[in-house]
Amino acid sequence: MNIKDIIRKKRDGYELSKDEIEFFAFSAADESVPDYQISALLMAIYLNGMTDKEMLELTDAMARSGDTADLSGISGIKADKHSTGGVGDKTTLIVAPIVSSCGVKIAKMSGRGLGHTGGTVDKLESIPGFRTSLSTEEFTGIADKCGLCIAGQSGRLCPADKKLYALRDATETVESLPLIASSIMSKKLAGGADCIVLDVKCGSGAFMKTVDSARELADKMVKIGRGAGKKIAALITDMDSPLGNCIGNSLEVWEAVQTLKGNGSDDLTELCIILSAKILELAGFGSNGECRKAARSAIESGSALKKLAESVELQGGNPDYIYNPDLLSKAAYKYEIVAKESGFIGHMDALKVGSSCSMLGAGRQKKEDSIDFGAGIVLNRKTGDRVKKGEIIAVMYSSDEALFEDAVLQFEESVTISDSKPAEKPILLEIIE
Amino acid sequence: MNIKDIIRKKRDGYELSKDEIEFFAFSAADESVPDYQISALLMAIYLNGMTDKEMLELTDAMARSGDTADLSGISGIKADKHSTGGVGDKTTLIVAPIVSSCGVKIAKMSGRGLGHTGGTVDKLESIPGFRTSLSTEEFTGIADKCGLCIAGQSGRLCPADKKLYALRDATETVESLPLIASSIMSKKLAGGADCIVLDVKCGSGAFMKTVDSARELADKMVKIGRGAGKKIAALITDMDSPLGNCIGNSLEVWEAVQTLKGNGSDDLTELCIILSAKILELAGFGSNGECRKAARSAIESGSALKKLAESVELQGGNPDYIYNPDLLSKAAYKYEIVAKESGFIGHMDALKVGSSCSMLGAGRQKKEDSIDFGAGIVLNRKTGDRVKKGEIIAVMYSSDEALFEDAVLQFEESVTISDSKPAEKPILLEIIE
Repeated sequence: MNIKDIIRKKRDGYELSKDEIEFFAFSAADESVPDYQISALLMAIYLNGMTDKEMLELTDAMARSGDTADLSGISGIKADKHSTGGVGDKTTLIVAPIVSSCGVKIAKMSGRGLGHTGGTVDKLESIPGFRTSLSTEEFTGIADKCGLCIAGQSGRLCPADKKLYALRDATETVESLPLIASSIMSKKLAGGADCIVLDVKCGSGAFMKTVDSARELADKMVKIGRGAGKKIAALITDMDSPLGNCIGNSLEVWEAVQTLKGNGSDDLTELCIILSAKILELAGFGSNGECRKAARSAIESGSALKKLAESVELQGGNPDYIYNPDLLSKAAYKYEIVAKESGFIGHMDALKVGSSCSMLGAGRQKKEDSIDFGAGIVLNRKTGDRVKKGEIIAVMYSSDEALFEDAVLQFEESVTISDSKPAEKPILLEIIE
Repeated sequence: MNIKDIIRKKRDGYELSKDEIEFFAFSAADESVPDYQISALLMAIYLNGMTDKEMLELTDAMARSGDTADLSGISGIKADKHSTGGVGDKTTLIVAPIVSSCGVKIAKMSGRGLGHTGGTVDKLESIPGFRTSLSTEEFTGIADKCGLCIAGQSGRLCPADKKLYALRDATETVESLPLIASSIMSKKLAGGADCIVLDVKCGSGAFMKTVDSARELADKMVKIGRGAGKKIAALITDMDSPLGNCIGNSLEVWEAVQTLKGNGSDDLTELCIILSAKILELAGFGSNGECRKAARSAIESGSALKKLAESVELQGGNPDYIYNPDLLSKAAYKYEIVAKESGFIGHMDALKVGSSCSMLGAGRQKKEDSIDFGAGIVLNRKTGDRVKKGEIIAVMYSSDEALFEDAVLQFEESVTISDSKPAEKPILLEIIE
């Protein structure tokens, strides 16, 4: 097989065969084809698209291009959840304990944060002692025993996707829906779960800015998952404003624990119940109404919190930090942002809040950057809230006082104060299944 | 300026600015942008096209990306001619002496052959002693003194084009008319001539298979030349069959000399008169009819032959080989191809004849390959000629007897014998100016 023939075929708008797709993915993974040929093909795919058949086959080939998780050693139904990335999105830390306390196994590989969105693995590592780098035996052992294990991604997970993503980033071919869908889903397929719930974020803080584009992406991912024999659903949820009140690694763990204790913000709690119920429903735990009840009861009974503490301990972390989250470190310096006028928070741009948080040291601009776990932002007011001039809108934390100046400017740009209360937006916009 | 912004703009179908085009061309030339970004942009250009403005600016930037010939030291009007490449195309060896003997200066850089087409520089090097690697002073000195100098291309001529061509070849983005036109014309602009005549070949042995595609390419090149202030015209000429009777380096020099002596084949002589007359016309030497007369008279008077001999001597070659071309070496072995049946030569596929000739050692598959100057094919019969079973259609020459087998099979595939005489095709199909 010859990469030039494959490039020509896609250039001319024809459908690639399964073998050609596989050759492309595997050549990207083992770097046996030069980058300049791969990137020409990526641009041809960007401009000429991919059929659903091609997209399914690309996802499958990328999933098989490296290590795949073997979850057969874990009894019961295994579920996975994926968020396309938002600001303040700590739902995995809440949903995973809820559903595993209900009997669904979560053996999940998660990523690190980059840019304005945080990563679950970074958040968990703000718990002292918590290890995200586990052997296969540890990973499946913990998941089988306690039903909940979240580890970092293996370096050999979907190397084809890793290569293609790096080239797409350099060649302006990121925003291709079949390429986005296959990139996300290849990692989900390699992850090996039976049921998958996708949280497709939509709005200013999300990759997908409109419901239409989010729906199109969700449709494709659900198609891929179903084609691969998975039970799958996608929720399109609002990401115009940050989710919950805390943004930043240890701050988000703190908020996740508060939510598991029943003290979470309305938007965050509601979204976690919806996501948990959808997973339980796919796993066969009853109607959606029954599953919502089960999820709420996992919070009310304290069983979800207990499950999180158990899993943290098995992964080397100190469970005291879960039962008493005030132990979690906050960065040494803080800065209070006060309202310059009275009115309602008309809009709080999630992307800008995320960037501001990253500027405080809580995120990475490059993969190699280190993270200030205690840095971040706590929102005292959210979109729709009334605020008086001089009242505190948010408190910023950082270990480096010099970082406040730029971060504050960025945060202030994110907030609009308006005379009237903006229309309320539901957190759940659509369900695709 | 950022290459990613440029890729994105072209990807989305917008026109690039002059500065962006220049950044692209210069980055390709000095390799300051990675190949994978250049090739993604090439695919975006292939699929989304280029406006005439972009094409002119790309040509200009590529021409300025390296050395440019300074012909100001040569008095008079300087002309250049370019063929898009055919089989048996030795017209430069005939046209250049004709027009320079009429008073137009030819200071021309020519290329080497690759694939099934030969290069003028290779052909000239089959004359013992002839040097194509000249200093700038030698080049302009000879051209100014005798009016005719043909040298090899400087290594620094249009490095942007060199880089882009190599990437286009690897990424299936060769067949983009604006990229082809700007590639050819960048070298013509860097060559510095005032008048340019383009011979756009059309047919089985040419890159452009149809008159429509040849016309489209010719149009674009004429537009570029005119935009750069050149006097320019393009002739679309037939390349379904090989041009003249000889294919191979020293064989073509032999045939060029025969043609300059008035003994050339009808098709070759006619095309050379047309090309010469068009150059003389652009240079202001009168009407096309007058220029045709002047060209014919340069052959009949022997002044064109004398001019070639003079130029060969100034470039270190032995002029005896021009006055007595039988001195030119023929390869040691020969093989006669005879007709297997009687009839007319219905078709003689130029591409296949060219490949057969290359198989004999006369051409290169890779740039590094060496050449057998004496190898080649002499056609005793051409398309439309009557042939009897057993008569010789062609004689093949090679220094390596083992090469005949494959070359003969390839040649035999190129020839169709038919019962009736095929319709005659004119050599000149269209003039674009």
